[in-house]
Amino acid sequence: MDDSDTRRGRPAVHRRFAQLHRGSGWHGDTERYGMAGAVLAGDLCLSWSDETLATCGLPTESIARGRVVFDRMRTELMAGQYLDMLEQATAGETDDDPVASALNVIRFKSAKYTIEHPLLMGGTLAGAPRSLLAAYSCYGLPLGEAFQLRDDLLGVFGDPAETGKPAGDDLREGKRTVLVALALQRATPAQAGQVRRLLGDPGLGTEGVATLREILLETGAADRVEALIAADVDAATAALATADVDTDAREVLEGLVLAATSRST
Amino acid sequence: MDDSDTRRGRPAVHRRFAQLHRGSGWHGDTERYGMAGAVLAGDLCLSWSDETLATCGLPTESIARGRVVFDRMRTELMAGQYLDMLEQATAGETDDDPVASALNVIRFKSAKYTIEHPLLMGGTLAGAPRSLLAAYSCYGLPLGEAFQLRDDLLGVFGDPAETGKPAGDDLREGKRTVLVALALQRATPAQAGQVRRLLGDPGLGTEGVATLREILLETGAADRVEALIAADVDAATAALATADVDTDAREVLEGLVLAATSRST
Repeated sequence: MDDSDTRRGRPAVHRRFAQLHRGSGWHGDTERYGMAGAVLAGDLCLSWSDETLATCGLPTESIARGRVVFDRMRTELMAGQYLDMLEQATAGETDDDPVASALNVIRFKSAKYTIEHPLLMGGTLAGAPRSLLAAYSCYGLPLGEAFQLRDDLLGVFGDPAETGKPAGDDLREGKRTVLVALALQRATPAQAGQVRRLLGDPGLGTEGVATLREILLETGAADRVEALIAADVDAATAALATADVDTDAREVLEGLVLAATSRST
Repeated sequence: MDDSDTRRGRPAVHRRFAQLHRGSGWHGDTERYGMAGAVLAGDLCLSWSDETLATCGLPTESIARGRVVFDRMRTELMAGQYLDMLEQATAGETDDDPVASALNVIRFKSAKYTIEHPLLMGGTLAGAPRSLLAAYSCYGLPLGEAFQLRDDLLGVFGDPAETGKPAGDDLREGKRTVLVALALQRATPAQAGQVRRLLGDPGLGTEGVATLREILLETGAADRVEALIAADVDAATAALATADVDTDAREVLEGLVLAATSRST
């Protein structure tokens, strides 16, 4: 339900359907048509991903093993997405520990889905031993977390020319990231008031973006996120060092650590 | 994306999530939260339906055969739903033959999904011969069409006490049913003008509902739909008569013809 595809200059699916509706001069609510079309396109892709697995040509036994990971991945992703909605809606106000909650969202929505589960899928389909699958988790979870933490930093401090995303867009959207949760944890009452006032304001201008950036830096939240990324990278690298993978795979997985966590996109 | 669950007095999923959001005094757009929650709940059910099939305990070979039907069913249902959206959006104006288009929507959205494919799924999982599967299609497609045609009539002429649905709700929603397409095909210019003016008006009152009902009767559209239902019932019954099914199954399938097409819900 976010517009992240617009980051690369292509409108998201619901906007494409809405454009079709508007351009054709059709009856009814344009936005509603866009949403309904996007939901159907999503359902179709969800079904097709499943059909693709079922008909991938691997032995039936391999597919049956892989499906267990696939099913867990889907359910946990959806739970993570709902956790994220809930965090945004409650703005962390009902949490005892908003930083832990934001990290939990990252774990389910990003770390597992983006890195851990794909590795477990591949390993399981290929019949990898349990020890290797465990190593994949030890490598994938911190790396996936670091990837999302880097994305959050870029969403606030990134160069629009490199990220393809307007500066401060995450701030206008009011995303309750780990970065924001850390800033609120360390903010003075005056700073916290400003965050609450500015974060999520769709009309947030250059000045408001600059104020929020300053608070994220002054509270040490940005540094703390960098430290979390560094610790995650260390953990992923250490897990990979002792994993029983061949040279080719090691090279790819080492490259992924850099690609997923380096400063530019 | 319709609210048909409200027909039984239970709010649809998106309304439940919106109520939760509103009642909790959460941040952000209530309707958007409701929609996003409903989309996720739908995705979860779509995934779980698939997981249920994969883990139903039948032999792997049976499941692999059943999955082919299951996958076709899902894809065709989503295509049918999109066709329906398209018909509503274009209000049949771009069709050479709006009646045929409305029948096509019914075929993909209702007849296949509600009756034909479930029978084919069961038959395929149980290893039924091709001749029986063909008989299921000859029975299921017309019966499914008749079921939806009956539902369309009830949506306009049904007793709210029996249907559980407010009188004229389909008319207020502006549903482009076969009934409406037939009426427009046979309407005088004055009648057609009235249909275009009243159909889909969310504030349509008792008088407007009565006017539309009159046009649907006067044009002979309602009679024509009854005739289509009768022909479908004959076709389904004939297909069942020559199908090689045992006595128990025949009894159930004969009962289904009545249950799906009788005058009350």
